[in-house]
Amino acid sequence: MSQQIPDALKNLSWELPRNFLGLEGDDASWEKAGVVILPIPYESTVSYQGGTKMGPDAIIQASRFIELYDQELDGEPGVEIGVCTLPSLHLTSAGPEHAIRELREAMDTVLEAAGDRLVIGLGGEHSITSAPVLAHAARLGEGRRLTILQFDAHGDLRPEYEGSRWSHAAVIAQCIDQADVVQVGIRAITADERALIRSRPGNITTIFAEEMWADDAWVDRAFDALGDDVFITFDVDYFDPSLMPATGTPEPGGPAWYPTLKLLRRVFTEKNVVGADVVELAPMGGNAAPDFVVAKLVYKMIGYHAGGRRGG
Amino acid sequence: MSQQIPDALKNLSWELPRNFLGLEGDDASWEKAGVVILPIPYESTVSYQGGTKMGPDAIIQASRFIELYDQELDGEPGVEIGVCTLPSLHLTSAGPEHAIRELREAMDTVLEAAGDRLVIGLGGEHSITSAPVLAHAARLGEGRRLTILQFDAHGDLRPEYEGSRWSHAAVIAQCIDQADVVQVGIRAITADERALIRSRPGNITTIFAEEMWADDAWVDRAFDALGDDVFITFDVDYFDPSLMPATGTPEPGGPAWYPTLKLLRRVFTEKNVVGADVVELAPMGGNAAPDFVVAKLVYKMIGYHAGGRRGG
Amino acid sequence: MSQQIPDALKNLSWELPRNFLGLEGDDASWEKAGVVILPIPYESTVSYQGGTKMGPDAIIQASRFIELYDQELDGEPGVEIGVCTLPSLHLTSAGPEHAIRELREAMDTVLEAAGDRLVIGLGGEHSITSAPVLAHAARLGEGRRLTILQFDAHGDLRPEYEGSRWSHAAVIAQCIDQADVVQVGIRAITADERALIRSRPGNITTIFAEEMWADDAWVDRAFDALGDDVFITFDVDYFDPSLMPATGTPEPGGPAWYPTLKLLRRVFTEKNVVGADVVELAPMGGNAAPDFVVAKLVYKMIGYHAGGRRGG
Amino acid sequence: MSQQIPDALKNLSWELPRNFLGLEGDDASWEKAGVVILPIPYESTVSYQGGTKMGPDAIIQASRFIELYDQELDGEPGVEIGVCTLPSLHLTSAGPEHAIRELREAMDTVLEAAGDRLVIGLGGEHSITSAPVLAHAARLGEGRRLTILQFDAHGDLRPEYEGSRWSHAAVIAQCIDQADVVQVGIRAITADERALIRSRPGNITTIFAEEMWADDAWVDRAFDALGDDVFITFDVDYFDPSLMPATGTPEPGGPAWYPTLKLLRRVFTEKNVVGADVVELAPMGGNAAPDFVVAKLVYKMIGYHAGGRRGG
Amino acid sequence: MSQQIPDALKNLSWELPRNFLGLEGDDASWEKAGVVILPIPYESTVSYQGGTKMGPDAIIQASRFIELYDQELDGEPGVEIGVCTLPSLHLTSAGPEHAIRELREAMDTVLEAAGDRLVIGLGGEHSITSAPVLAHAARLGEGRRLTILQFDAHGDLRPEYEGSRWSHAAVIAQCIDQADVVQVGIRAITADERALIRSRPGNITTIFAEEMWADDAWVDRAFDALGDDVFITFDVDYFDPSLMPATGTPEPGGPAWYPTLKLLRRVFTEKNVVGADVVELAPMGGNAAPDFVVAKLVYKMIGYHAGGRRGG
Amino acid sequence: MSQQIPDALKNLSWELPRNFLGLEGDDASWEKAGVVILPIPYESTVSYQGGTKMGPDAIIQASRFIELYDQELDGEPGVEIGVCTLPSLHLTSAGPEHAIRELREAMDTVLEAAGDRLVIGLGGEHSITSAPVLAHAARLGEGRRLTILQFDAHGDLRPEYEGSRWSHAAVIAQCIDQADVVQVGIRAITADERALIRSRPGNITTIFAEEMWADDAWVDRAFDALGDDVFITFDVDYFDPSLMPATGTPEPGGPAWYPTLKLLRRVFTEKNVVGADVVELAPMGGNAAPDFVVAKLVYKMIGYHAGGRRGG
Repeated sequence: MSQQIPDALKNLSWELPRNFLGLEGDDASWEKAGVVILPIPYESTVSYQGGTKMGPDAIIQASRFIELYDQELDGEPGVEIGVCTLPSLHLTSAGPEHAIRELREAMDTVLEAAGDRLVIGLGGEHSITSAPVLAHAARLGEGRRLTILQFDAHGDLRPEYEGSRWSHAAVIAQCIDQADVVQVGIRAITADERALIRSRPGNITTIFAEEMWADDAWVDRAFDALGDDVFITFDVDYFDPSLMPATGTPEPGGPAWYPTLKLLRRVFTEKNVVGADVVELAPMGGNAAPDFVVAKLVYKMIGYHAGGRRGG
Repeated sequence: MSQQIPDALKNLSWELPRNFLGLEGDDASWEKAGVVILPIPYESTVSYQGGTKMGPDAIIQASRFIELYDQELDGEPGVEIGVCTLPSLHLTSAGPEHAIRELREAMDTVLEAAGDRLVIGLGGEHSITSAPVLAHAARLGEGRRLTILQFDAHGDLRPEYEGSRWSHAAVIAQCIDQADVVQVGIRAITADERALIRSRPGNITTIFAEEMWADDAWVDRAFDALGDDVFITFDVDYFDPSLMPATGTPEPGGPAWYPTLKLLRRVFTEKNVVGADVVELAPMGGNAAPDFVVAKLVYKMIGYHAGGRRGG
Repeated sequence: MSQQIPDALKNLSWELPRNFLGLEGDDASWEKAGVVILPIPYESTVSYQGGTKMGPDAIIQASRFIELYDQELDGEPGVEIGVCTLPSLHLTSAGPEHAIRELREAMDTVLEAAGDRLVIGLGGEHSITSAPVLAHAARLGEGRRLTILQFDAHGDLRPEYEGSRWSHAAVIAQCIDQADVVQVGIRAITADERALIRSRPGNITTIFAEEMWADDAWVDRAFDALGDDVFITFDVDYFDPSLMPATGTPEPGGPAWYPTLKLLRRVFTEKNVVGADVVELAPMGGNAAPDFVVAKLVYKMIGYHAGGRRGG
Repeated sequence: MSQQIPDALKNLSWELPRNFLGLEGDDASWEKAGVVILPIPYESTVSYQGGTKMGPDAIIQASRFIELYDQELDGEPGVEIGVCTLPSLHLTSAGPEHAIRELREAMDTVLEAAGDRLVIGLGGEHSITSAPVLAHAARLGEGRRLTILQFDAHGDLRPEYEGSRWSHAAVIAQCIDQADVVQVGIRAITADERALIRSRPGNITTIFAEEMWADDAWVDRAFDALGDDVFITFDVDYFDPSLMPATGTPEPGGPAWYPTLKLLRRVFTEKNVVGADVVELAPMGGNAAPDFVVAKLVYKMIGYHAGGRRGG
Repeated sequence: MSQQIPDALKNLSWELPRNFLGLEGDDASWEKAGVVILPIPYESTVSYQGGTKMGPDAIIQASRFIELYDQELDGEPGVEIGVCTLPSLHLTSAGPEHAIRELREAMDTVLEAAGDRLVIGLGGEHSITSAPVLAHAARLGEGRRLTILQFDAHGDLRPEYEGSRWSHAAVIAQCIDQADVVQVGIRAITADERALIRSRPGNITTIFAEEMWADDAWVDRAFDALGDDVFITFDVDYFDPSLMPATGTPEPGGPAWYPTLKLLRRVFTEKNVVGADVVELAPMGGNAAPDFVVAKLVYKMIGYHAGGRRGG
Repeated sequence: MSQQIPDALKNLSWELPRNFLGLEGDDASWEKAGVVILPIPYESTVSYQGGTKMGPDAIIQASRFIELYDQELDGEPGVEIGVCTLPSLHLTSAGPEHAIRELREAMDTVLEAAGDRLVIGLGGEHSITSAPVLAHAARLGEGRRLTILQFDAHGDLRPEYEGSRWSHAAVIAQCIDQADVVQVGIRAITADERALIRSRPGNITTIFAEEMWADDAWVDRAFDALGDDVFITFDVDYFDPSLMPATGTPEPGGPAWYPTLKLLRRVFTEKNVVGADVVELAPMGGNAAPDFVVAKLVYKMIGYHAGGRRGG
């Protein structure tokens, strides 16, 4: 998706392209790509200070400073698999219901076009997740049921929030009839969400953050609750606020980096990950560290996916 | 609207109340008040970086450090007239159409209850303005037509914006059938807005910022275009960005402080100002100066209104 | 302590009240409350950059976005016990000695009025702590001796600092004749403070941060050093600066979230906690994560206290 | 220069392209363009806090929120003339001499390719200016001599600065043998620069800021000192720091917006402007107003140029 | 006051010294100096957000980037007259009364040692001003009466503020028995201050900001009200907040740069300026422009003083 | 290195000196000092946002608020050993090659003058490290080979970067012929760097961050790889971004505080540490916590060094 530069100027020394990882030429082309990055800077039903609209740009900007080589995987997965970054989707300002419907239609189009490519959405607020989840669930063959693997501090299981079913705080509730959900890192829910979780034990599996800090036993428990087909939604407030202050409602007591990677690697290697998104980064003026954390997280997903494809 | 403190603790030394001007006791009560401050921290159809949701709080917080005495008026208008600050209105997250309808209903209720009190709304984004304008227009008696006096850098005369008629960029267009508008400070419009202005000369009077910097002749021109009944909507991006950087789309070449006061004073003194709002302040972390500018602006309006009432 | 809204406007949709947790109606009333939040935004003898004066507001603002349900406790302790938020105490600018004396008198009044309610002070700088400690110590019956449980990076045991006994750096030294102190998280003291600690082994128990990172054995050691009646003073610089950068003199090597909760829960459950304060949050422009951490900390204290009362 | 989007996805609603003004399709193509925007985010010999490297991005980002319609010119000059935004030039880190030489070569290539198109460089630090100036001077026919019209607070006439002739503070001195210079807004020079100005009266014309605030007589004086062929270099610290705080060494007492436009319009209309650059914007976290000011300034230049071409 | 560098390292290339203007060697020595800069980073009775404690450092830091040459004066006044920067005075934290007494004693010592040197204090909050004013008043010979020339937005004429006579808001009131005061730029006073001004017409002369924006006639009026011996106290909130946002309680409608210089130049040239201070700069993270404005202001004072001494 | 204060003013209460730890009198003198702090605020070949130029000042400023007493060591090592802070070295702006050559010459001079004193450089960007490393390597006697102990997230083993061998990203590669290197915390390298590491097993020992989080076994492995003579270079991006967000390219998954100290203590106690530097702190506006972390880190090094000297 590189810019068109007149031939006479091709040989000048241009900056790295504005795409995820700053890939040049073919490595970033739609044709080659095994992964598609879809920025969805949608922000409407914000809590508190907002800013998730600036998330995709910040992630892409930081990603251009990430090393392509991944020493855990001993390779350059971004180059090997190819990563095509689409422009940002622009959703209507007519309200969340209209916007999410528009997004759902866009997701159908994108998934259809993408074929085998893994599409990773970059939010924006968490309310965007129902669109890809329901699009993927609808595309799964007869008899297959999607599991959402939700990394999050919050349950997002309310029936509605502030007058809208399309709120970030209700987004997973919109999906639990069409998919199961395994939530990890949860540490802020309502009493009603707690009751809902208890009432749907096969449908909703919740691993609370306070079960996760002593050791990594939770990784197996989370993995075991997944079905074969998994959509990963990663709300960055899952992480401890020390690592991830740049989000709307940070909650102390969140999980750390390496155990999270451990679960992600296993899921990408042993399950069929149909799609993913990373949401709720609200970049902070003057502190780019959270942007780097998220960019690296996305690249680890790409790496694990690339490894999974080649049998890694 | 002061907090209820147990009698046993009444005599402790408490901070100034959290209301406009930090007024104590009766001076801030609904009963005495000649002015009502209505915070409307609504933000949904944001351009660029957003943040107007934090505007009302910032204005009220800064207002608590403003001197009650106004040397231009040689009095303490806030105390004389009484200023009651309501809590913030909380509008639905279901989208701008729903939210503006909710606001319109709320405005009808507030205006009915307010009676002779001047209600000044604090935004929030400019899209909130159609609600009070249309509510006031509907309340004016037979044969009277409201004029909107719009301080703004932008025309806000689009038919719709980003899929919504309820956008800040379309808000005045929603009102021009029910009211006339006199716009001052304008320096960013579309070609279609320019054509609309030309096509409705009696209905829309636009004074461009570039006509305003040489001298103050524009003050008379603006005044002369007003009808008897005026609603003032003050988008803070009217001011030059040197004075008012804290707004979504600042435009260089804006007007200055004193000529603006000159027009405001004349309007409050010689016209019937039925209501007002001040919108689009997006407070900046670490720079409270714009908050002080807006708080003082609101207080000048209160002072001119109070003066007008007593024949000043 | 809700605002007084005219009856005609009661049914509009107002924002959550500006109190701790944003509680509505009776849940925030003095009458029902089992916990009283007392903001004390006092800042005078600041180290380095200051800003603790803005602490209470930031904590209360963040608390309004915290879920009332606490999954560790499986309940909504804030609603169950009731939390009344007082306005901010405003202390004289005539200097720390005058201000702390004023605060001491205010604390006597507040404690007398509060009766069984747990009063939690929100600072402001740490120098405010001697007032509630000495007030509580004086109120304990014959033969009972208060223990201060001090979470802190610093000893605060200097005889005076920068010409004042009333400095934050000397505040615990003002209390050790009337109370014992158990300090946890300490990692910055003077040689004189070290000597003082050594010279008063029964009176001052210090658990250094470097003893705390390997495992949680320190929790028992701290608990065992407490008497029956405990005042908790929590200087937020206790936490590691990764979690809590928003304080005047952050010190690396601080403790983490869960072990701290473990100690707090045990103390609230098995001891008589007479009062508490949380101090030295200096909110950072553009990073609200520390505010959320402190708000959650205060809510965990409330929850443990509520649980303790019902035998939890 | 729009991104290549797969045909199957062309009809989705994408954000405006990342180019100057956010132009779509043909309006931003090299073929149609009458103006070329060349970002040169070079920063090496920084004074004080730096940050000019982020300037071009900030200008382009802000430009996407500028109205295409210009009411002074009563048209949409960006669409009429076409504006093609190149990617950013990436210069070597081997030091200023190498980098400026590289830039000079790039400029020769760009100007050759550009033909009649007006190339506007976006800095970056001021040291980039010698490259286009000398490239243009070399391309002027026999007997024609370039005038640099320099908007600046500083003279930039030192022989070298901090060990380098290629410093921003020496950049104009590198050009005065090949071109004349008319400086406006100057208010910070060295004694040696003052002497140099006095010693080369035909070659260097300096209009000090303190001559400029009383009235606009300086506009004529500046204009009259220009030759027929003009390169405009606009260091944003020319403006008063109230309007333009976002630069390395702001100097109070700078000129204002409208008189500056007056000179620019006249120059574009009556002279042959061969090229231009706008440099030294150092974007500020959390204050985008300066970015908007510069974006609008660049657009006014484009508008005046477009008007000049059609005889405006 | 340069640092002592071992002889063996003298020839290395060191940064400019950390003094006002970054003067090297003799030019900054106490012996040569005609001007002494005395930083007084005192902050205690802060309004709102505070931060004036960081003011002197920011001014000195910015001053190191100011050109020594002043084109208005056609010379390098800092080098000609010599400017010695003392370390910062550290006042007790025991409260404002103790601190101001300490400062008064320090000022007596400094003035005694300084002899003919002009001492310019850098605040810190405005409460520091009574110390040098009263010290100078006491040092004037029999029959001479000091005039304070106060640049300020606020009157600072309260009898006390927040329980302290030593507050910034009361500082001029502490001086009006020993000195007369001419206030310029005033736009925020209390009714009591207004009455006090009216009751002491010879003693207090107040020129309100709203009288100052139309033309410069006020410069003569201010000058004519001065006695022969003048102490200049410059609260930076005098300036319009567009130029000077970095202060505790900014007030719109403030004066501009050049007229202010006009008055300062005349006073330094035609009166006996015995001392000066510049106070209330509260540096803003990420915006150094206000620091540069104040540093340049101080340098203009030095230049006018140096010019006055040589008959300029 | 204290400032020269006139005798008449010696007894006033001055702030702590502007040196590392704010040491007074003899404790900071060159003569007494066992440790020399050499600020090298060099920044030229910056990645991303830059700002390391402000690092040394921020470290020194924070160090003035650190307690001199170190409870781990039960002493005041700064006072015991003496710490002399030199002014900042000012390197040419003529490009990295010139600057690093200049620095190399300066290091030779400084080391010669320093004799037994431990010189700790404060960067600035990492490119400064080759100068002291090569200077130390050259000074080691026949048959002794220096080991660089590199704390870092990045390998810095590229042959060149962005056209310069003198880049921060190539700095260790410039040294591996003259010295061995033991790298800890590494988590971002290129494929070529990985190959280089594999090809030089005795010369380059790399301990990846992902081997370091489970337990502290890596401490022994790192220690065992060191030779007798060690230069420590500490790039602050070694730490996890939760603890150290203030650096150009933060990488998640970094090591924590205490294990790092464990290695440092052992090295200072059992090896001959010939010199050290701490680089790449890019201070963040409004968050001083990273500055404190680095200042404390430097002080721990000084303490371990002082302890090592006395046999601790």
